[in-house]
Amino acid sequence: DFLHALQEIIPAFGASTDNLERCRLNGVVDCGERHKHIYQRAMLLVEQVKVSKGSPLVTCLLEGPTGSGKTAMAATVGIDSDFAYVKIISAETMIGLSESSKCAQIVKVFEDAYKSQLSIIVLDDIERLLEYVPIGPRFSNLISQTLMVLLKRLPPKGKNMLVIGTTSEVDFLESLGICGAFAVTYHVPILRSEDAKKVLEQLKVFAEDDIEAAAEALNDMPIKKLYMLIEMAVQGPHGGSAEAIYSGKDKINMSHFFDCLGDIVRPY
Amino acid sequence: DFLHALQEIIPAFGASTDNLERCRLNGVVDCGERHKHIYQRAMLLVEQVKVSKGSPLVTCLLEGPTGSGKTAMAATVGIDSDFAYVKIISAETMIGLSESSKCAQIVKVFEDAYKSQLSIIVLDDIERLLEYVPIGPRFSNLISQTLMVLLKRLPPKGKNMLVIGTTSEVDFLESLGICGAFAVTYHVPILRSEDAKKVLEQLKVFAEDDIEAAAEALNDMPIKKLYMLIEMAVQGPHGGSAEAIYSGKDKINMSHFFDCLGDIVRPY
Amino acid sequence: DFLHALQEIIPAFGASTDNLERCRLNGVVDCGERHKHIYQRAMLLVEQVKVSKGSPLVTCLLEGPTGSGKTAMAATVGIDSDFAYVKIISAETMIGLSESSKCAQIVKVFEDAYKSQLSIIVLDDIERLLEYVPIGPRFSNLISQTLMVLLKRLPPKGKNMLVIGTTSEVDFLESLGICGAFAVTYHVPILRSEDAKKVLEQLKVFAEDDIEAAAEALNDMPIKKLYMLIEMAVQGPHGGSAEAIYSGKDKINMSHFFDCLGDIVRPY
Amino acid sequence: DFLHALQEIIPAFGASTDNLERCRLNGVVDCGERHKHIYQRAMLLVEQVKVSKGSPLVTCLLEGPTGSGKTAMAATVGIDSDFAYVKIISAETMIGLSESSKCAQIVKVFEDAYKSQLSIIVLDDIERLLEYVPIGPRFSNLISQTLMVLLKRLPPKGKNMLVIGTTSEVDFLESLGICGAFAVTYHVPILRSEDAKKVLEQLKVFAEDDIEAAAEALNDMPIKKLYMLIEMAVQGPHGGSAEAIYSGKDKINMSHFFDCLGDIVRPY
Amino acid sequence: DFLHALQEIIPAFGASTDNLERCRLNGVVDCGERHKHIYQRAMLLVEQVKVSKGSPLVTCLLEGPTGSGKTAMAATVGIDSDFAYVKIISAETMIGLSESSKCAQIVKVFEDAYKSQLSIIVLDDIERLLEYVPIGPRFSNLISQTLMVLLKRLPPKGKNMLVIGTTSEVDFLESLGICGAFAVTYHVPILRSEDAKKVLEQLKVFAEDDIEAAAEALNDMPIKKLYMLIEMAVQGPHGGSAEAIYSGKDKINMSHFFDCLGDIVRPY
Amino acid sequence: DFLHALQEIIPAFGASTDNLERCRLNGVVDCGERHKHIYQRAMLLVEQVKVSKGSPLVTCLLEGPTGSGKTAMAATVGIDSDFAYVKIISAETMIGLSESSKCAQIVKVFEDAYKSQLSIIVLDDIERLLEYVPIGPRFSNLISQTLMVLLKRLPPKGKNMLVIGTTSEVDFLESLGICGAFAVTYHVPILRSEDAKKVLEQLKVFAEDDIEAAAEALNDMPIKKLYMLIEMAVQGPHGGSAEAIYSGKDKINMSHFFDCLGDIVRPY
Ligand SMILES: Nc1ncnc2c1ncn2[C@@H]1O[C@H](COP(=O)(O)OP(=O)(O)OP(=O)(O)O)[C@@H](O)[C@H]1O
Ligand SMILES: Nc1ncnc2c1ncn2[C@@H]1O[C@H](COP(=O)(O)OP(=O)(O)OP(=O)(O)O)[C@@H](O)[C@H]1O
Ligand SMILES: Nc1ncnc2c1ncn2[C@@H]1O[C@H](COP(=O)(O)OP(=O)(O)OP(=O)(O)O)[C@@H](O)[C@H]1O
Ligand SMILES: Nc1ncnc2c1ncn2[C@@H]1O[C@H](COP(=O)(O)OP(=O)(O)OP(=O)(O)O)[C@@H](O)[C@H]1O
Ligand SMILES: Nc1ncnc2c1ncn2[C@@H]1O[C@H](COP(=O)(O)OP(=O)(O)OP(=O)(O)O)[C@@H](O)[C@H]1O
Ligand SMILES: Nc1ncnc2c1ncn2[C@@H]1O[C@H](COP(=O)(O)OP(=O)(O)OP(=O)(O)O)[C@@H](O)[C@H]1O
Ligand SMILES: [Mg+2]
Ligand SMILES: [Mg+2]
Ligand SMILES: [Mg+2]
Ligand SMILES: [Mg+2]
Ligand SMILES: [Mg+2]
Ligand SMILES: [Mg+2]
Repeated sequence: DFLHALQEIIPAFGASTDNLERCRLNGVVDCGERHKHIYQRAMLLVEQVKVSKGSPLVTCLLEGPTGSGKTAMAATVGIDSDFAYVKIISAETMIGLSESSKCAQIVKVFEDAYKSQLSIIVLDDIERLLEYVPIGPRFSNLISQTLMVLLKRLPPKGKNMLVIGTTSEVDFLESLGICGAFAVTYHVPILRSEDAKKVLEQLKVFAEDDIEAAAEALNDMPIKKLYMLIEMAVQGPHGGSAEAIYSGKDKINMSHFFDCLGDIVRPY
Repeated sequence: DFLHALQEIIPAFGASTDNLERCRLNGVVDCGERHKHIYQRAMLLVEQVKVSKGSPLVTCLLEGPTGSGKTAMAATVGIDSDFAYVKIISAETMIGLSESSKCAQIVKVFEDAYKSQLSIIVLDDIERLLEYVPIGPRFSNLISQTLMVLLKRLPPKGKNMLVIGTTSEVDFLESLGICGAFAVTYHVPILRSEDAKKVLEQLKVFAEDDIEAAAEALNDMPIKKLYMLIEMAVQGPHGGSAEAIYSGKDKINMSHFFDCLGDIVRPY
Repeated sequence: DFLHALQEIIPAFGASTDNLERCRLNGVVDCGERHKHIYQRAMLLVEQVKVSKGSPLVTCLLEGPTGSGKTAMAATVGIDSDFAYVKIISAETMIGLSESSKCAQIVKVFEDAYKSQLSIIVLDDIERLLEYVPIGPRFSNLISQTLMVLLKRLPPKGKNMLVIGTTSEVDFLESLGICGAFAVTYHVPILRSEDAKKVLEQLKVFAEDDIEAAAEALNDMPIKKLYMLIEMAVQGPHGGSAEAIYSGKDKINMSHFFDCLGDIVRPY
Repeated sequence: DFLHALQEIIPAFGASTDNLERCRLNGVVDCGERHKHIYQRAMLLVEQVKVSKGSPLVTCLLEGPTGSGKTAMAATVGIDSDFAYVKIISAETMIGLSESSKCAQIVKVFEDAYKSQLSIIVLDDIERLLEYVPIGPRFSNLISQTLMVLLKRLPPKGKNMLVIGTTSEVDFLESLGICGAFAVTYHVPILRSEDAKKVLEQLKVFAEDDIEAAAEALNDMPIKKLYMLIEMAVQGPHGGSAEAIYSGKDKINMSHFFDCLGDIVRPY
Repeated sequence: DFLHALQEIIPAFGASTDNLERCRLNGVVDCGERHKHIYQRAMLLVEQVKVSKGSPLVTCLLEGPTGSGKTAMAATVGIDSDFAYVKIISAETMIGLSESSKCAQIVKVFEDAYKSQLSIIVLDDIERLLEYVPIGPRFSNLISQTLMVLLKRLPPKGKNMLVIGTTSEVDFLESLGICGAFAVTYHVPILRSEDAKKVLEQLKVFAEDDIEAAAEALNDMPIKKLYMLIEMAVQGPHGGSAEAIYSGKDKINMSHFFDCLGDIVRPY
Repeated sequence: DFLHALQEIIPAFGASTDNLERCRLNGVVDCGERHKHIYQRAMLLVEQVKVSKGSPLVTCLLEGPTGSGKTAMAATVGIDSDFAYVKIISAETMIGLSESSKCAQIVKVFEDAYKSQLSIIVLDDIERLLEYVPIGPRFSNLISQTLMVLLKRLPPKGKNMLVIGTTSEVDFLESLGICGAFAVTYHVPILRSEDAKKVLEQLKVFAEDDIEAAAEALNDMPIKKLYMLIEMAVQGPHGGSAEAIYSGKDKINMSHFFDCLGDIVRPY
C-alpha cells in the first residue's frame, strides 16, 4: 500500500533517482487519507501506461497550495514505478537561461524519453517553468506553447509515457488552457488537524499532552511549512535545545512553539 | 458511404499518409449522424475542387470542442480524396521554432502544393499554429497575417487546392477575422448519449446491461476523451484487468468506471 | 460605357496586366447601377490626372465589405486607363517579409512610378498591407507612416499619379487617419436582390422559374461569395453535375442550392 | 505687405529654396485677414531673431486643420527672410528610416544651422516626424525627446535661430508637452465663405453669378482641399472641359461642382 | 548675501564654469524673497557637505514650473561653492544616445566626482534625462533605476558630495519614487506681480508710469518667459525699435506689449 | 544581548565585513524594544541554520519604511554570526548592468556560498534588485524568477544557508509572490517619540531641556532620516556651528532645528 511503498524506496538506478530523492527531503510520512488516495490513483495510471495500446501518452496534474507535498508525491510515484526513464524537469536547473534555451532543454528531455519503452516525466512547478508572475500577468508564451504541444504530441509507435505536472497556480494554468491539456487533475490538500496530528505523532518531538493542542493549532498548514516550523520550535527560546529534543531527552516548549507559529503565519 | 470510406482506408502513397493515419489513433467508428453529415459535405468540396474552373481555391474550417474529432475527420478526408498532394501542417513539427521559421515552413508547404494539380492542406489546430493564449490575448500576428493571405491567394493557373482548417477556439479566430477567410465552416460536435451508445456498442467492453447507463453518463463527452476514459476503466480498481476485458473474458467494472469518469470531469 | 469597357478588356502591355487580370478571376459583369457609377467617377479621376497641372497626385479609396468587388474594380480602372505604368501592391507578394522590407518594396513601386509621366498604383487590401488584426488592435505603424507620407508626397515635376486604395476595414483606416489622407472615397456595396438577379441572368445556370427565388435569397450577398456559392451549387447533392449545368444541359437543383447557401452563411 | 511679399517670391539662393517652393504648389493668394495677420507676426519674429542678444533661439508653432495652409505659410516666411540658412525637415525625405536615423538627420540639420549666423528651420508636420497614430496612441519617443531638447538647446554664442513647427494634431503635441516647448503658437484656420470668395475671385473659373453660391458652399473648407475640388470640377461631368475653363472660354458647371463637393466631403 | 553672490560670479576654473554660465543666459537678478530664501538654504547644504562626517552624500531637489529659474539657481549654487568638481548632467549633451550610453555617461560623472574631496553634481531636468512623456506614461526605467541607486550610494570614505536635481514634473518623479530619494526638496515659484515689478525696474525698458501696469499683467509669469516677452516687446509693432529701447532712448509701447503677451499666453 | 552585540562589532575577516560596516554608517544605537526583538529572532535563525538537518535553507525578510534601519540590521546579523561566508547583494554594485548580467552575478554569489558549510546572503533592497518602479508597474521578471527559484533551491548536501532579504515595498513583493517565498517576515518600524528620545540622549547634541520637545517632533521618523536631520541642524542657521556642537561646547538651536525639520518633511 501507500505507506509500504513510501518506506521501501529503493533507487532503481543511479543519478536521477538521487534527484528525485532530494525532492522529499523530509521523507514521506503518513499524512492522511487524501494524500494516500491520490498516490493510489497515480499508481493506477502507471499501470495503465504499462499496458496501453490506444493511449500511448497519459497526462496527470497535481495541483494544490504551496508546500502541500506535490513535488514529493510526484517524485515518489516516479521512484515507485519501475520505469527505465524517470526525469524531473525543474526551473532550478535552468536559472537564468533564455526562454528558448529552456524550451530546448524541455524538448530534449521528451526526445530522450521517447527512446525508452516506458517513461515518466515530472514537469515540476509549471508556473515557475513558465516564468509566471501574477502582475500583468507575465509568463513565457514560448514555453507555454511548447508544453501545450508536448502534452498532446504522441510518442513514437510502441513507446508509452506518463507526464506528471505540479503547480500551485492552478487558476493561472486553467486560464492558459494548460489545465485542460492534462487528462486528469488531482488536488493535493493542506493538512487538517487530524492529518497534522498523525504527522506529529510520528515525529515524537512533543510531549504526549501537548500533541492535541499543537495539532489543533496546525489546522490548514501545508506539510512543508510544518517541517520548517518544527525546526524553529526545537531550537527553544534561547537556542541550543535542538539536540536534546531530537534525541528524545527533551520536548518542545509550547510557548516558544506558538511564538514561532506566529512568526510564520503573519497576517497579510 | 461514410462508414464504408472509414473502413477501407488504404494509404495511396508512402510517408505522408502515415502521418495522417497517426491522426486517428483509435480509428474512425460510426459516432452519429452529425459527424457523418460533415464528412459528406467535405467530400463534396473535394469533388468541387477536382472540376472547378472559377474557384481554384476552396477553404473549409472544422471547428468544435477539444477532442471532438476534428483532426481525425480532416485526416480522413485527406486520405479518402485521391489527390496527389495531401499534407498536414501542425505545431508538433515546429516546436520551439521562431515565428518566422514557422511562417517559412507554412509557406513552403503551400508552394510545394502549388506544384500538384490537386492538393489538400490541413491547417491543424490553428490556434496552436498561432501560438495563442487567452491571457492577453497573445498570438503571433506574423503567422496570422500569413494565414490570412494564404487563405485568399490563388494557386497558379491550372492548379486547384482545398484547405481544411481545424480549431477549438472558433471565437478567437472569429475575432481575428480568420473565420471569415474560410468559405465554409462546419461545427464538429461532442457526443450525445445516443452517439456515445453507438461507439460503446462497437467497442464491446461493457456488459450488455451496463451500456445504457454508461452511455447516459457519457452525454456531452468528446470522442477523444471517451477513448481515454475507457482505457482507464479497463484497468480495473486494482490494475491488471485490461487484458481480460479487451480479450472479451471480462467486462468493465461499473463502479470503477464512474470513479474514472469523476477523475476526468472535475468541476472547474 | 462601363459594360463596354468591361467587355473589351484588352491587355495593353505584358506581364503586369496579367496580374491585374488575375484580380478579376470571374470577369466583370453588370451587377447594378451603384458599381457602374463608381467606375465612371473613377475614370473621371483618370482623365483629371492626365491633364492636371496643380494636382500632380490624386488619391481615391474604394471601401466596402469583403468580396464586394473592390479589387476587381480597381484592376479594371487600371486596365482601362491607357497609362504606361499600372501596378498593384498586394500583401500576396510580400508574405513573411519584415515590416521594413515591405516598406522598401512599397517605396520602390512609387519610385518606379515617378519615372512614368502617368501612372496608377493600386494599394490593395490596405489593412492586410498594414498587417492589421482587430485584437489589440495591432498593425504595422512603420507601414502606416510610410503610406501616409506617400499619399501626400508629390511626384517630381511633370509627372502625374493616381493612387487607388482598397479596404474592407474602413473604420480602422479612419481611426488611423489614413482615410482622411485620400482625396475621395467611394463605398463599393454588396448586392441587393435586383443586382443579384442581373448577375444570375448572365450566368444562365438556373432554370428561368428559379431565378427570382434564388435572387431573393441572395439579397445582401457580396459578388465574390455569390460566385463561390454557384460553384458549390452546380456540383449537385451527390457531386458530378457541374459539367451538365455549365454546358446548359441541366440546371441547378434548388434544394441543394439552399443547402449550400446555409453552409456559406452560418449564423455567427 | 503680406500680399506684396507673396507676389514677389524671388528665390534668394539655389536648391533649398526650390524645396520651399514645392511646398506652395498653388502659389500664395490672398485668403483673408487671419492668414495675413499670422504672416505679419511671424515676420516680426524674423526681425527679432536678427537683432536679439538674450534670446538666441526663438520658436513658433503653426497649428491648424489638415490643408489649412501651414506648410505654405512656413515656407513663405522662410523664403521672405533673407537668412543664409533656411531648411525644411519633413518626413518625406526620411521614409522608412529607423527612428534613430531620423533622429540623426534632424540633429544634423540643427548642427548645420548652428554654423550660420542666422537660420530658420521648419519642422514640418511634427506628428508625422513623430510617426504618430491615434490608435494607442503610438509615436516615437526617441524623436519626441530629441525635439524637446532641440527646442530648448541654445545655439552657440553669436548664432541666432528661428524654429517654425507645423502640425494638424495640436492636442496630441499638447499632451506630449511639445506645444509648451514653443514660445508662441498661432492657429492657421480653414476658410470662411468670405475668405473662399476672395480666392474664387482670383481663380476666375466660375461664372460671375455662381461665385456667391460656390463660396457659400465652401464655408469651413481648408484651402488645400479647395484647390483639389476646383481641379475635379473643371473636368466637367464627362471629362475634357478643363482646358476651355482654364483658358477662360468656359466656366465650371455648377451641378457638377456640387457632385464633386459631395464626393470630397463624405459624411464619416 | 544672495544678490551679492549673484553679482560677483567669478569663474573659479575653466571650461565647466562656462557651461554653468550658459545656464543663466540672462544673468541673475533679484526676483523676490522666495528665490532668495531657497538660494540661502541651498548654500547651507554646501556648508554642511564641507564639514559632514556622517552624511557624505547630501541630495536636494529644486522643483517648479517650466522657466521658473531652477537651472539658473542650481548653476549659481554650483558656481558660488568653491568646490573643486562642479558638473551639470543635462539631456542636451546626450541627444540621440541609447539609454545605456546615457546611463554610462551619468555614472561616469559620478565616478569622476568621487575622486574629488568635495563635489557638486547637477541633474538638470530629470524628466528629460528620463526621456519622459506623459502619454503612457513612458520613460527610461534603466536611467530611473540608475538615478535611484546613485542618489543612495555613498561616495568612498573621505569624499563628500552634493547632488542638486531640477524638474518641472515633480508629480511624475513622486510617482516613480525619485522624489523621496532626495533628502530635501524646494519649490521654485513663478513670479508674483511684486516680484515681476522688481525685475522690470532692474531692466529699465518701460516708462516709469507703465511699470505698475506691466507688472500687474505679469502676475504668475515664470521668469524665463518674462525675458522672452520683453525681447518680443522691444521690437515694437513694426520691428526695428529694439536698439533704441535698450540704449534707453525709447521705451516699450504698451499696446504692443499686451499684443505680445497675448501671443505668449494662449488659452489652452 | 542586542546592545552588547551592537557594541562589540569586531570584523571577523577582511574585505567583505568592510562592506557590511559601510551599511551602518552611523553605527548601531539602542532605538527601542521593537528593533531589539527583531534582532534577537534573527539571531535565533542563525543558531537554527548552524544545527539544522532537515532545513538546509532558511529565509527571512526584513520589511519596513525607507530608512527604518533594515539594511543596518541585516548587516549586523551577518557580522554577529560567525559564519565563514557573509555577502551582501546590492544594486549599487550592478548599476547599468543588463538584467541577465545582474542575474548571473546573483547566481554566482549563491554558487560561491554553496561552497561554505555555513553562509549568509543579504538580498538588500529587493525592489531595487528587481528594477521596480510603481508606474506600470515595471520590474525585471528575469530577476524576479531567479530570486524565486533561489529562495527555494536547496544547497548541496551538508551545506546550510541563511538568506535575509530587505525591502521597503512589501506590498509589491507580496503581489509578485516573493514574500510568500520567505519562511518568516519581520516588520522593521519607524521610531516613536520614546524611541527617538533614546537615540537623542545617546547623541548628546541637544540641551537637556530641549530633548523632550525634539523627540516629540520626531514621532514617526525613520532612524536614517533622523541622522540626516541632526546633521542639518548642527550647522546652525548661518552655518559653521557643527564643530562646537559635536565637541559639546554648544547645543542645537531649536528654532533652526524646526526649520530643518520643515524642509525634510514637506507635505506631498
Ligand atoms: N506523505 C507526504 N507527501 C508529501 N510530502 C511529504 C509527505 N510526508 C512528508 N513529506 C515532506 O513534505 C515536504 C513536501 O514538500 P514539497 O516540496 O513536496 O511540497 P510542494 O507542494 O511541492 O511545495 P511547493 O508548492 O513549494 O512546490 C517534503 O519535504 C516531503 O519530504
Ligand atoms: N468518427 C470519428 N470521427 C473522429 N474521430 C474518431 C471517430 N471515430 C473514432 N475517432 C477517434 O477519436 C479521436 C478523435 O481525436 P482528434 O484528435 O481527432 O480530436 P480533435 O477534435 O482534433 O481534438 P483536439 O481538439 O484536441 O485537436 C481519434 O483518436 C480518432 O481515432
Ligand atoms: N462588376 C463587377 N465588379 C467587381 N467584381 C466583379 C464584377 N463582376 C464580376 N466580378 C467578380 O467578382 C469578384 C470580386 O472579387 P474581388 O476580389 O474584387 O472582391 P473584393 O471586394 O476585392 O474582396 P476582398 O474584400 O476579399 O478583397 C471577382 O472574381 C470578379 O471577377
Ligand atoms: N495664402 C495662402 N496661404 C497658404 N497656402 C496657400 C495660400 N494661398 C494658396 N495656398 C495654397 O494652398 C495650399 C496649402 O497647402 P499646405 O500644404 O500648405 O497646407 P497644410 O496646412 O500644410 O496641409 P497639411 O495639414 O496637409 O500639411 C498650397 O498648395 C498653397 O500653394
Ligand atoms: N534670480 C534668478 N533666478 C533664476 N533665474 C534668473 C534669475 N534672474 C534672472 N534669471 C534668468 O531667468 C532664466 C531662468 O531660466 P532657467 O532655465 O533657469 O529656468 P528653468 O526653471 O530651469 O526652466 P525649465 O523648466 O525650462 O528648465 C535664466 O535666463 C536666468 O538667467
Ligand atoms: N539600532 C539600529 N538599527 C538600525 N540602524 C541603526 C540603528 N542605530 C543606528 N542606526 C543607523 O541608522 C541608519 C539606518 O539606515 P539603513 O540604511 O539601515 O535603513 P534602511 O531601512 O535600509 O533604509 P532604506 O529603506 O533606504 O534601504 C544607518 O545609518 C545606521 O547606522
Ligand atoms: Mg513543489
Ligand atoms: Mg485536433
Ligand atoms: Mg480585394
Ligand atoms: Mg503641411
Ligand atoms: Mg531648467
Ligand atoms: Mg536599506
